Amino acid sequence: MTQRTLIKDLSALPDGPVTVAGWVETVRDQKKVQFVVLRDESGALQLVNPATREIDETDASAEASVALALTESISGLSLGTFIEVTGELKHDERVKLGGLEVKVGTLAVAGTSVPEAPIAADSSLDKRLDYRWLDLRQPKNALIFRISTTLEHAWRTWWVENGFVEIHTPKLMESPSESRAELFQLDYFDLGTAYLAQSPQHFKQMAQAAGFGKVFEISPVFRADPSFTSRHATEFMSVDAEISWIDSHEDVMAMQEQLLVAGFAAVKAKHGDEIRELFGIEVEVPSIPFPRIPLAEVHTILKEARGYTVPREDGDLDPEGERQISAYVKGEFGHDFVFVTDYPANIRPYYHMRNPETGLTKSYDLIYNGTEITTGAQREHRIDELLANAQDKGLDPAGIGEYLEFFKYGIPPHGGFGMGLARVLMLLLGESSIRETTLLFRGPTRLAP
Amino acid sequence: MTQRTLIKDLSALPDGPVTVAGWVETVRDQKKVQFVVLRDESGALQLVNPATREIDETDASAEASVALALTESISGLSLGTFIEVTGELKHDERVKLGGLEVKVGTLAVAGTSVPEAPIAADSSLDKRLDYRWLDLRQPKNALIFRISTTLEHAWRTWWVENGFVEIHTPKLMESPSESRAELFQLDYFDLGTAYLAQSPQHFKQMAQAAGFGKVFEISPVFRADPSFTSRHATEFMSVDAEISWIDSHEDVMAMQEQLLVAGFAAVKAKHGDEIRELFGIEVEVPSIPFPRIPLAEVHTILKEARGYTVPREDGDLDPEGERQISAYVKGEFGHDFVFVTDYPANIRPYYHMRNPETGLTKSYDLIYNGTEITTGAQREHRIDELLANAQDKGLDPAGIGEYLEFFKYGIPPHGGFGMGLARVLMLLLGESSIRETTLLFRGPTRLAP
Repeated sequence: MTQRTLIKDLSALPDGPVTVAGWVETVRDQKKVQFVVLRDESGALQLVNPATREIDETDASAEASVALALTESISGLSLGTFIEVTGELKHDERVKLGGLEVKVGTLAVAGTSVPEAPIAADSSLDKRLDYRWLDLRQPKNALIFRISTTLEHAWRTWWVENGFVEIHTPKLMESPSESRAELFQLDYFDLGTAYLAQSPQHFKQMAQAAGFGKVFEISPVFRADPSFTSRHATEFMSVDAEISWIDSHEDVMAMQEQLLVAGFAAVKAKHGDEIRELFGIEVEVPSIPFPRIPLAEVHTILKEARGYTVPREDGDLDPEGERQISAYVKGEFGHDFVFVTDYPANIRPYYHMRNPETGLTKSYDLIYNGTEITTGAQREHRIDELLANAQDKGLDPAGIGEYLEFFKYGIPPHGGFGMGLARVLMLLLGESSIRETTLLFRGPTRLAP
Repeated sequence: MTQRTLIKDLSALPDGPVTVAGWVETVRDQKKVQFVVLRDESGALQLVNPATREIDETDASAEASVALALTESISGLSLGTFIEVTGELKHDERVKLGGLEVKVGTLAVAGTSVPEAPIAADSSLDKRLDYRWLDLRQPKNALIFRISTTLEHAWRTWWVENGFVEIHTPKLMESPSESRAELFQLDYFDLGTAYLAQSPQHFKQMAQAAGFGKVFEISPVFRADPSFTSRHATEFMSVDAEISWIDSHEDVMAMQEQLLVAGFAAVKAKHGDEIRELFGIEVEVPSIPFPRIPLAEVHTILKEARGYTVPREDGDLDPEGERQISAYVKGEFGHDFVFVTDYPANIRPYYHMRNPETGLTKSYDLIYNGTEITTGAQREHRIDELLANAQDKGLDPAGIGEYLEFFKYGIPPHGGFGMGLARVLMLLLGESSIRETTLLFRGPTRLAP
């Protein structure tokens, strides 16, 4: 292993010999001195080399040849090339880049780049995504995935410390759990057609029937969704949890808000400064409890306080309605999150439990900075009610037989949520699209790189 | 939320009122007293109820009716039904099950099971998998997934503490990175055919080109593999890592052995006692370094020390060879793991780097308790060498063009490994098949539940 020092760790070292490695970000090839900005995953560093442009004919020393070769090697560096450098670290306040530089001793080219970079930081998003491996070298873009690492690890740690079991549910399914719309399908040996899971929900519920109690999973899900919005993808990471012995969706919300606080606190602690510097954003750790507003009341508030009437006939919120209620909550309560609760049955799936008193479902959406990031609910676990709800929606009970099979053998009351990872990151960082917060985006017209 | 106490936590409580919830494992409905064994995700508990079989006609008290109803309710419990019970905890050394019991006060049925259980603990594996949600109620089977949770969390914690970035690579790919065999494919909008990823390797390498340095991922991968062995599946969880600036596969092995030690130590600390009790196995935390034996030497050892000649013509190890070298290493070095290194190029893919001195690849397999769990390697990152290796294997450079695209823009030396999660668990716990250590197995003839 190259015993290199990460660039961010150099400032703590005394002047002296170091080895660094990364890619060439800029080269300033002046007549008498050469400057290279070297970047690695932790930061950027100025390399300096006094140029030796020619060898005096009277000086045939090996040293002089080496110096000449080094100078020529630096002159020939194409941007993006990976190099390993051993040299002398020198702290020097005059150096703008971190107050230090490394005088090059030896330089080894590890992986040469073609001379022309196909994208720049200001290229169109679509073009940047064509060369995503280069786009991700931008410090701001790379930081997103270190933030994601921290966020997910804090979430998993919270779950593990609270007795949850991590499950890995299959993405290949025999039968679609919901509608047949937006499903990817493929040939599967002699069994005919397999479907890609649109959500792990069916299996998270099965884990409740298995008596697992509390489970979580962060996994890819697939939607053959022809949408081109900034918040839809055909493959995305879904953050899921499901818990037993709940009284209502309130228990699911209480779990989710604690989880979010744990995650955001970890991100702020570890990356707060970098996020301020690169995104111009102060990470807000939300306070508990998050505001909760029933959907009917949301409509009243939107009309009366914001002068906005949601145009959808089915009564569900549209994206503008989400933005408006979010702005209202931010203004009234200073909160970035709002749980919209108690959706009517007509805009929720049959397996959301209904409140017998109101007829409304025991379900919620979580809206964060103007965009929905989660749907959650208490699930209907009583098979008779499930069948009645399905019939009520005009679904053929035969079509959902597979889904209901495991309910016959006993299952406790339960509920859970699914949350889009890339959406959370997009809204946390003020990005305009989940294409920016997904490592390698997949959409109807994008399947590469 | 039901304020229930987990059964494992009861022993630390004083006698008094408690609420517990879980499923009915057995009912002993005697004339004068009823016993129910209640199980939850943490353990089993004896419930006791003095039976009230009839109401004396002179006693029309509400209390007596309630007692009668409770008795009848217990008599009517089908096994597997989920119930919630409030009652009086009493420590009593005479009770075999944990030295305590709960006298039932109130009992609420939360989810009724049909009367006949379709499987028993000794049903065939295939039959058990048909009703996996019931099979997973067996304490031994459920424990596997709590162990997996601990193992994965310890691995991720090790990675996070060592500066790795967690990545989520797409499972939908435009082009297969290797052969077209064993690929699942599907229609993808106007783009034609998409393939399901057989491994995240292509994208892990792309992350090195992006300058991420060190990455990991635990994610599902897909193989349209018609095998019916105990160690193959069509969908399985792959544990992957990839690191830059390595000198050879030795650096990858050094990382992987540290990772394994961190995981096994956590499992032993948290579940060592349960594993001893339910699996009859003492968890061994391996010592570092793991033995390393070049493949050529393995063949010599097998022949000379074990009298075994591997029958494969290509020189690769067969399953019996893996068992034999593992037994040899266990005998000689007392170690459960062995790295078999330096495979010849003919049995490795073209992108494994070759040692120019020996012509052998800088690659390894890791064998654990007789079965291969990992292939790892330093990757060839120089595009000219990649093309030469591909040509050497008779591959059409046009067919691997997509794969090589990102190598043109600079990439550091790198390598990594992929490891099958279910295999590690199978071998750790002495199970006979990955079907036991996969939550919901997928094979050529199994796509449900």
